[in-house]
Amino acid sequence: MVETRAVGQRVRRIDAPPKLTGQERFTGDLRVPGMLIARPVTSPYAHARINGIDASKALLVPGVVRVLTSHDLVVARDESGAPVKMPIDSDEAVYVGQFVALVLAETDAAAEDGVVAVVVDYEPLPVVATLDEGLDPTSPHIRETRQQANDEEAAMHNADAAVHAEENDEFVAPNVSNSVHFSRGDVAAGFAKADAIVEFTVESQTVHQGYLEPQVCLVDIEPLGDLTVYTSTQAAFYCRTRVAETVGMPTQRVNVVPMPVGGGFGGKFVLIEPMVAAAALAVGRPVLLRYARMDDFLAGNPAPDCRIAIKLGATKDGDITALESRLVFDTGSSGGSPLQIAAILLGGYYRFPHLELKGHEVLTNKPGAGAYRAPGAQQATFAIESAVDELARKLDLDPLEFRLRNCAVEGDERPNGGAWPRIGLKECLLALREHPAWINRNAAREQGRGVGIAVGGWPGGIEPATAVCRLDSNGKLTVVLGSVDLTGTNTAFAQIAAETFNMSAENIAVTTAPTDAAPFAGGTGGSKITYTVGKAVQRAAEDAMLQILAVASEALEASVDDLEMVDGSVRVRGVPGSGLSLKDIAGRTMGFAARNEPVYGTGSTAIRESAPGFAAHLVEVEIDEVTGVTRPVRYVAVQDVGFAINPAEVEAQIHGGVVQGLGWALYEGMVYDNDGQLLTATLMDYALPRAEMAPWIETVLVEVASEHGAYGAKGIGEPPAIPGAATVANAIRDVTGTRLLCLPIRPEAVSEALWERAPATAAD
Amino acid sequence: MVETRAVGQRVRRIDAPPKLTGQERFTGDLRVPGMLIARPVTSPYAHARINGIDASKALLVPGVVRVLTSHDLVVARDESGAPVKMPIDSDEAVYVGQFVALVLAETDAAAEDGVVAVVVDYEPLPVVATLDEGLDPTSPHIRETRQQANDEEAAMHNADAAVHAEENDEFVAPNVSNSVHFSRGDVAAGFAKADAIVEFTVESQTVHQGYLEPQVCLVDIEPLGDLTVYTSTQAAFYCRTRVAETVGMPTQRVNVVPMPVGGGFGGKFVLIEPMVAAAALAVGRPVLLRYARMDDFLAGNPAPDCRIAIKLGATKDGDITALESRLVFDTGSSGGSPLQIAAILLGGYYRFPHLELKGHEVLTNKPGAGAYRAPGAQQATFAIESAVDELARKLDLDPLEFRLRNCAVEGDERPNGGAWPRIGLKECLLALREHPAWINRNAAREQGRGVGIAVGGWPGGIEPATAVCRLDSNGKLTVVLGSVDLTGTNTAFAQIAAETFNMSAENIAVTTAPTDAAPFAGGTGGSKITYTVGKAVQRAAEDAMLQILAVASEALEASVDDLEMVDGSVRVRGVPGSGLSLKDIAGRTMGFAARNEPVYGTGSTAIRESAPGFAAHLVEVEIDEVTGVTRPVRYVAVQDVGFAINPAEVEAQIHGGVVQGLGWALYEGMVYDNDGQLLTATLMDYALPRAEMAPWIETVLVEVASEHGAYGAKGIGEPPAIPGAATVANAIRDVTGTRLLCLPIRPEAVSEALWERAPATAAD
Repeated sequence: MVETRAVGQRVRRIDAPPKLTGQERFTGDLRVPGMLIARPVTSPYAHARINGIDASKALLVPGVVRVLTSHDLVVARDESGAPVKMPIDSDEAVYVGQFVALVLAETDAAAEDGVVAVVVDYEPLPVVATLDEGLDPTSPHIRETRQQANDEEAAMHNADAAVHAEENDEFVAPNVSNSVHFSRGDVAAGFAKADAIVEFTVESQTVHQGYLEPQVCLVDIEPLGDLTVYTSTQAAFYCRTRVAETVGMPTQRVNVVPMPVGGGFGGKFVLIEPMVAAAALAVGRPVLLRYARMDDFLAGNPAPDCRIAIKLGATKDGDITALESRLVFDTGSSGGSPLQIAAILLGGYYRFPHLELKGHEVLTNKPGAGAYRAPGAQQATFAIESAVDELARKLDLDPLEFRLRNCAVEGDERPNGGAWPRIGLKECLLALREHPAWINRNAAREQGRGVGIAVGGWPGGIEPATAVCRLDSNGKLTVVLGSVDLTGTNTAFAQIAAETFNMSAENIAVTTAPTDAAPFAGGTGGSKITYTVGKAVQRAAEDAMLQILAVASEALEASVDDLEMVDGSVRVRGVPGSGLSLKDIAGRTMGFAARNEPVYGTGSTAIRESAPGFAAHLVEVEIDEVTGVTRPVRYVAVQDVGFAINPAEVEAQIHGGVVQGLGWALYEGMVYDNDGQLLTATLMDYALPRAEMAPWIETVLVEVASEHGAYGAKGIGEPPAIPGAATVANAIRDVTGTRLLCLPIRPEAVSEALWERAPATAAD
Repeated sequence: MVETRAVGQRVRRIDAPPKLTGQERFTGDLRVPGMLIARPVTSPYAHARINGIDASKALLVPGVVRVLTSHDLVVARDESGAPVKMPIDSDEAVYVGQFVALVLAETDAAAEDGVVAVVVDYEPLPVVATLDEGLDPTSPHIRETRQQANDEEAAMHNADAAVHAEENDEFVAPNVSNSVHFSRGDVAAGFAKADAIVEFTVESQTVHQGYLEPQVCLVDIEPLGDLTVYTSTQAAFYCRTRVAETVGMPTQRVNVVPMPVGGGFGGKFVLIEPMVAAAALAVGRPVLLRYARMDDFLAGNPAPDCRIAIKLGATKDGDITALESRLVFDTGSSGGSPLQIAAILLGGYYRFPHLELKGHEVLTNKPGAGAYRAPGAQQATFAIESAVDELARKLDLDPLEFRLRNCAVEGDERPNGGAWPRIGLKECLLALREHPAWINRNAAREQGRGVGIAVGGWPGGIEPATAVCRLDSNGKLTVVLGSVDLTGTNTAFAQIAAETFNMSAENIAVTTAPTDAAPFAGGTGGSKITYTVGKAVQRAAEDAMLQILAVASEALEASVDDLEMVDGSVRVRGVPGSGLSLKDIAGRTMGFAARNEPVYGTGSTAIRESAPGFAAHLVEVEIDEVTGVTRPVRYVAVQDVGFAINPAEVEAQIHGGVVQGLGWALYEGMVYDNDGQLLTATLMDYALPRAEMAPWIETVLVEVASEHGAYGAKGIGEPPAIPGAATVANAIRDVTGTRLLCLPIRPEAVSEALWERAPATAAD
């Protein structure tokens, strides 16, 4: 164990004070001169032709300045000639809540009044509301204008068009917009070897990312029309490119200022920014759009609902022989559901000698699907980890040992080809096996509790990044980045830089710079920021350190090799009195007639191998026999984190992920009726887990060092949110004897399961 | 001559469109929520004890929020324990216009009304108003509180305290705050060898920088009290340090956003920012202070008035034998006049075998002196170039040949020791000798015009700098800098970067970043930005180019040595079809799962040798025999610019400098009465040259390449503003036969000279 000064320490989060004291300034708090407030006129129909929009009454409302339709927004065309996509369309509504116009007004109140006064002439059209309708070859396309286009043109649009199943180039259905197919070996032969087979279909509903701060964006207009985009985004550079492309301006004329993000969880890459930018340009004034909570439920980009049929076989010795699965994702009104990654994970946690995975994505008249912390992984993991658990029971095998026997290790092949790099799935299972909660599981059962376990993993994203480490005039250092700090990553970066200088992290400031000046970093998502940017920060700090030593070497007339950094000073090794403080170094490198170059360290990464992160979870649940309410009472989350730069932050990430997983398991689901009307558009109807609903969470950090991350760190954001649903379902199965297949598992389903079990129990 | 694609080209200024169209957003245009307007209560006395400030009536004015005195401003103490200096003092006023209180109000009107309602109890004290009073050993100190301090304590304060003349440690006078003494050889012996000697004393008045935009600063308060300083400053990093030190916060908690500067000319380094920051912290709200024009005259930091006695001797062959001079600078109420540099220049343009230069700086009850484009150089050059001209006349020598014979060249010693590096003074004189205006000077004289010439030079500043050159997603490049663009330097930097990529400058964007994220650069002053930052930009671009070639090398499977950049694409040398565009490179280095590191070139400089810049000017003047009005009608400005990155910008800089020089020569002077009252506090009373007063200016660019600047460039900002006064005085002498010794040379002085000449003319 290397002794560390900063990394591996429990350092308080840099971003905590303004948030904890309520003093943070979020995008919605901004005001700029001349700013207009935008409020949307939204469609009450899931599908309708719009024959007219009459804004005349709205324009009479005092304070209303303009009512914009999509025709007023000058947006660039994509390569096919179609307008770049935005969440507004004044010709056709394809989901309830879609924007059909924007009212711009001097005040919130005027904007709201204006919205009410806009008269829209809708002509309802047939609605494709469900997965089954989406799969139905006889259904109309969700978009009338698309239906009218000929097949050839439609085929040009990869995501948002009918696709042909790739294996036989056969037309599937008008609303099938994407397909995947992975196969290995011969599944029929595999199942033939199996001593037991389980086969069932699981379902999950649309789940909202549930961030505290709804979508919000302010676009200011600079002299000569350049745009400054203040936004709650996870991905400043991506947002910049998208805005620039949409409004048809050079990237350099758009500057994205990444504001503090009040929760993102994948849902805040880019949604409203291009539209707000186009609106600001249309009126020549700054425009602020703040979603209300209901806007965010209706016109956000939630995780898609899906249905996964799964069939799994194994020998009585516990060797898995075959996996077959069919996945269908409901991507809503625009393509891009995480179908492929779901299939990869579903077929990737274990060694499957034979597998066959087919998946389709279907369009429906709902809002478009977006990313959600571990996109596709919750759904896939619920399927495979329910099946694995059930199969172990059927074979009367210990479910943990069964997993250990089959789990993927370095070199095992993934469904999409390519071997896993070194991963910690096995190490997580081994650690869980040693945990008292697992060892004493029967004691919990004797108290009437159900005990469930499940694993989950995330391949981890990669994206190049650059970081800067600069010495300031007062002898402190500033790390400058282009990555958005969602989860305390800036604190981790301060630690990484500080470690290089053998000092504590409070000596390091971290700036997330706007896109006009920041070094590039990818979006904060895919569990990749600490992994990729962290290494860039380490390299930048090392580069700065070399520059500092070079200045000191000249000043102290000593070889660089004889110098060391101690307590913020460079000194000749072993000669305490010889120090040159960092402030001295700063004075020699900045200021009139100073003689040395400024210390400006840079570091870049383009890691080509991801560092997948795995977790193994255990939950003990208590079930109210009367109401069917499931209460998780103890939760153990084991996770391979590579190396915990800041154990307190890592644990907090795990805590959050676990609670989100419990939301998927027990509470969260956006319910649509057959007309595509959302029945759960408020937080009164949509159940988010609250603090008092969270169990006591024990975390166990496993550290299988990654080869590329700083100090062995790997991405840790996604894995803890993945196994929850299966873990809970397996625990409920443990108590009730019933496998519940639909998420969320609401009390009525559990109650029904208990009811079914009751006679058997009475018969004992 | 190397063929160039971008440097050496006449490229339009990047910053011109918003300024020319009136759309630029200056600091005074900013509004932030909760912002208060500050207006100063100013002293009507040049020196007064303040016995009390009654703000009660002011606080009754609707909209007035607070009236702050210096006691309300929590400012750090310097090393002596004194409060850090700010332009407000509520105990003692030491010049007319000094702030004694700040009224903070919701509107400009309320603030103005509040100012009028503040009652200050002043007790007038003796005023030290003139140079002679400042030099008088019996004068009181300009500051009562300083007078009361004992000598020992006073001696601790270098700038603002009585000094002892260094040669004999003898006390000079209470208000003498600095001294210089340079000597070489034996001046008495030198003058003994002279065949002719001239000896006179020149004077110049206080001159204001005359920027279009008065001083202005807005300090916003971020969550948790961090400060964002929006300001019209030439020196963002220096301003940051000064604000942080004044308010006692870590540098990292202060972010300076350098705003477009509506003219600086040396007067906008740091003046009001620390005070505005302290005021914002005192009330916990953002504060905007905008100087009115009169505030800027009264409480700015103008160029000091001075008096220079000079004695110069030469042999009849034209060899200068000795120089003796005594310089006295009136530094106003705070030290820091350019005494030393004035002495160095005065004794530096020529080879003086023997010289003796003594100078003193004196405090008076006027605003403190500041830098002005070529600080000290106008005054010193007026003295030496008047004397050289007069001596040539006395010896009946050609004034240009006389200068050529004696002018300093590489290796000649400067008064302060150290030899000149390679300079272009001689080359400028040679170029002027070939100019038609010089060749045909007698033709002009026959038309009744006077022809004068003079030279001037500036040693050039040095300061370390870093620059960044980043590839953006659309294949364009952005240069990121910490230097403020006063004069088109960002355009020059775009050209320098573009040249490296063999493309035109419009492919390069330039960002001047705030101090929390910018690479370090020094203040824009001292003619050093193009010289120092320019080289950093060149290195950053070269670094980026190497990174681009490395990516292309991998993609094209070709050696870097075989690659070339043509028309924005990297291709295999001589294989036109093989190109990889910069957008392709961008795609390989940014974006999810991209495989190459982002292109982020950096370059730093710490040039240790300055690149002095010299100019030789010629003017033809016409003098109205009746009114004495001098009208410059033709002006030739020859300047060694090293290498003109953008000839159009260089010429524009020369044009501006020439007109400023004409201001010094003929128009500008702040006049104080014996009570220290400024008589010229408006632009009705203070004459700035206007466009129609400018002659036709011919520029001749001499290019004596500097060793260190990009493409040989050197600083060109200061030199063209230097020779003007002497050039015009020499031309007036040419017509009138009278040497005028006081700047500005107003019509009454010329008229008097003509009157004196008249009888002689009549007697001919």
